[in-house]
Amino acid sequence: MKLKEIKLEDLKPTEFIEQKTKDISSAVADSLAVNALSGGVDSSVVTMLGHKALGRRLKTYFIENGLMRQDEPQRIVSIFKDLGVQVDIIDAKKEFFGALKGLTDPEEKREAITQAFYKNVFARLVRESKAHYLLQGTNYTDVEETVAGVKRQHNILEQLGIDTQKEFGYKVIEPIIELRKSGVRAVARALGLPEELFNRPPFPGPALAARVIGEVTPDRVELARLATKVVEEELSSTKAFQYLAILHEDKVTGMRDGKRDFGFQIEVRCWDSVDALTGSPTKLSFETLQRLSSRITTEVPGVVSVTYNIATKPPSTIEAV
Amino acid sequence: MKLKEIKLEDLKPTEFIEQKTKDISSAVADSLAVNALSGGVDSSVVTMLGHKALGRRLKTYFIENGLMRQDEPQRIVSIFKDLGVQVDIIDAKKEFFGALKGLTDPEEKREAITQAFYKNVFARLVRESKAHYLLQGTNYTDVEETVAGVKRQHNILEQLGIDTQKEFGYKVIEPIIELRKSGVRAVARALGLPEELFNRPPFPGPALAARVIGEVTPDRVELARLATKVVEEELSSTKAFQYLAILHEDKVTGMRDGKRDFGFQIEVRCWDSVDALTGSPTKLSFETLQRLSSRITTEVPGVVSVTYNIATKPPSTIEAV
Repeated sequence: MKLKEIKLEDLKPTEFIEQKTKDISSAVADSLAVNALSGGVDSSVVTMLGHKALGRRLKTYFIENGLMRQDEPQRIVSIFKDLGVQVDIIDAKKEFFGALKGLTDPEEKREAITQAFYKNVFARLVRESKAHYLLQGTNYTDVEETVAGVKRQHNILEQLGIDTQKEFGYKVIEPIIELRKSGVRAVARALGLPEELFNRPPFPGPALAARVIGEVTPDRVELARLATKVVEEELSSTKAFQYLAILHEDKVTGMRDGKRDFGFQIEVRCWDSVDALTGSPTKLSFETLQRLSSRITTEVPGVVSVTYNIATKPPSTIEAV
Repeated sequence: MKLKEIKLEDLKPTEFIEQKTKDISSAVADSLAVNALSGGVDSSVVTMLGHKALGRRLKTYFIENGLMRQDEPQRIVSIFKDLGVQVDIIDAKKEFFGALKGLTDPEEKREAITQAFYKNVFARLVRESKAHYLLQGTNYTDVEETVAGVKRQHNILEQLGIDTQKEFGYKVIEPIIELRKSGVRAVARALGLPEELFNRPPFPGPALAARVIGEVTPDRVELARLATKVVEEELSSTKAFQYLAILHEDKVTGMRDGKRDFGFQIEVRCWDSVDALTGSPTKLSFETLQRLSSRITTEVPGVVSVTYNIATKPPSTIEAV
């Protein structure tokens, strides 16, 4: 497949939506399709395109992997219900945490999540649904970074030469693969998706597992989740490209009740970026940084230390894991 | 021993120096004393007091433990040579790194350094010198923090009920134990110590071992040393209470030559504080933070990520280890 980017200035959202709806219709024909909705702008746009093309012949699942933001499943389902799209929540927490048990290497963690997602959870859903098509939210930056070896995207198996038909039992359709994030947002707007959905900072495929250095356990994810809540509440007004909280594995010395004690460290990152390929730390005020630190050390149990990322990408990456 | 603080406003440096010189003279009488000079203001003041009291009957050693800042031994020896005090450098790198091998717990690391210092290196020097007295730079904040359980100071064995005479073969004299850092600095000034010495940010007892999370090896100390050099060069003009670079054990994702790669993270801390008991991060400009990050990722091999501490003490501590 020869892939060509549609640049933002060349994108006509309404025409794009019509074309993709037609493409999906003719590809799936009178068969069934499924897709997984994460609540990110990519999978939200794909859900709406699929819904327009297939109506009830598209089955949309929200897979609760235990790695999402607080109250995320209910929130997303409710937004799509208002748009007339039914989304089923699948509780797969045990499968994901089982797959992640004992792993500390970031690549192995990503791979475990990919495998749990495709081989276990999704393959089962597809079998049960009798669908032969899977709609995926792969975008152009994912492709570039995967090709460059920067990132192993979990949603781009075909690009890597993996035959999903043979290996997983279904065929993947990627309607937004020619768009970068800014293009996806423009299409989201044209689709009538609510602002709160498509203007949120990007959330990575491995979700909060990408925000935990070291082993990903339910307890450690919960700490990252609480810190994420603070960071998103405090930084949503900054209009930064992305902001995130990372739970470190290193423990550092702190003080509790006047005594020496070891505790956790949370690293906050907030990025200025256009396309995630390069980025620099947002120049937050010290007032904001202090409020972040004060809230995180108060609201996240066991945290005694908070840092702010000051490195650019490159040589850093947006995420730490 | 009932210990009483001499507050800065009650301190008369010249009288203090006379009194302590007399005390040391009468305690040591016609015997010999030794002391270890680290180059910090505490041990520098003690060296000068001991030198005034005992002249050549005080033997001063600079113990090269492999954990000091770049070029530190030569620099310190040269400063004291100019003041008429001879200081001998003792190469004890092997003993310290041997004692630290395999240790990752901060308490165990501190303890290993203490034991290597007292039981191995210093006990040997004292035996060889035939001295029965050891001059130590314990100050009032050390005592308070040790009593409160916040910190296990390596230079306050007697306060903890350890009989140094019996256990290590010599008696400890602590001339500045009634002073806090500000008082020690005032005495340093009155003793004619050069500004560059007593106005430097405090450096902890375990030196760069306190700046390495996880195992302390020569290679890892070297990374912390290079980062420390950058931080001290960039932040010496800030007049902050203390500034430091910490090498984390956690590795994070970064990019090298356009490819994904794991690398090291350095955490920078810069503190506003009066007495180290409480502190808050210095409000550095983003220009300074960017320069720190850019220099550290360029000058310290393998570093892909740099953070700045934004937590206060408490619940953080000044140092991480």
